[in-house]
Amino acid sequence: MAGVAIEFWYDFASTYSYPAAMRVADMAAERGVDVDWRPFLLGPIFAAQGWRDSPFNLYPVKGRYMWRDMERICRSLKLPLKRPEPFPQNSVLAARVATSLDGETRARFTRAAYHAEFGEGRAIAERSEIAAIVAGLGLSAEATLANALSDANKDKLKRESAQAQALGLPGAPCFVTEEREIFWGNDRLEQALDWAVGVRR
Amino acid sequence: MAGVAIEFWYDFASTYSYPAAMRVADMAAERGVDVDWRPFLLGPIFAAQGWRDSPFNLYPVKGRYMWRDMERICRSLKLPLKRPEPFPQNSVLAARVATSLDGETRARFTRAAYHAEFGEGRAIAERSEIAAIVAGLGLSAEATLANALSDANKDKLKRESAQAQALGLPGAPCFVTEEREIFWGNDRLEQALDWAVGVRR
Repeated sequence: MAGVAIEFWYDFASTYSYPAAMRVADMAAERGVDVDWRPFLLGPIFAAQGWRDSPFNLYPVKGRYMWRDMERICRSLKLPLKRPEPFPQNSVLAARVATSLDGETRARFTRAAYHAEFGEGRAIAERSEIAAIVAGLGLSAEATLANALSDANKDKLKRESAQAQALGLPGAPCFVTEEREIFWGNDRLEQALDWAVGVRR
Repeated sequence: MAGVAIEFWYDFASTYSYPAAMRVADMAAERGVDVDWRPFLLGPIFAAQGWRDSPFNLYPVKGRYMWRDMERICRSLKLPLKRPEPFPQNSVLAARVATSLDGETRARFTRAAYHAEFGEGRAIAERSEIAAIVAGLGLSAEATLANALSDANKDKLKRESAQAQALGLPGAPCFVTEEREIFWGNDRLEQALDWAVGVRR
């Protein structure tokens, strides 16, 4: 049987993408589903809706709810939680690095970057923080950043973000099945995986 | 042992409140939790955020996602789904009627109104539709509407909506536990009920 895959779309500025990134690999593996890690930028999607900042900042009621919800989720998953300052972090550099890496290395970088950002409150918008995260994975920071900042890689991320917009992703994280069913939110991971393997609920 | 209760806050214009209203009573009863049905108006909360229409209309990407998500949810729960025109329906009259009713009668009216609105696509903003729903429950439409439109009842709904705002409810539906933990969304009902009985996850 050919493997079933699910796309995991995430933006490094997105809080709920953090718990999703930490649990998607294990949960998918349990069900025999492959994960296609798809970093993208929400900025253009938000800008198209007139938002120039995180909706969690623009709408404080939503922001207060989200941070309390994140506390509950992270406690339940035994994940550390520390809010980075400022929030949101500019996620472009992290997304470029993730885009430039392949397969399991991309997944490892993604988890490490989310852990740094929301587990330790580090400013992943900064090149020095990203370099430290890359080096911590045993990669050359210099070579990785040079590759991430190449025009070809920047264009690749732009195309990915355009595809996210074309798919109609309303936010991050999103899980997209092979039939293009979209499930939005960390709390929809279970349902998305069920759908991917043919369980409709 | 004294009973544990959960507050179920809903607005009749809210799509996701429909499946929540249809399943909250049975799911709470299974866990021995009482449900306090709390109709309110999201309008003032949305207006405070600068929204004069449903965010699902203001932000079409979210709207398209929501309607597909509702299709999946309603199919899974074997609930009919038909979009009312216009959407959203003005929910003030339905909220006033629900506010004026007590206990199980309020729950029955709430389910009947959501079924009419989102199961049959009926315009519950209209007095004639509300009167028909009330009559279908074996109540006097004339007496019920007179009571619902009394100044005392209008004030009661205003106070309830002010309390929702003071609680920091970010939308509807919300489930609120006795310690004022808020869970937003139909998909959080299970977690809210677990929390209410002391299971923290």
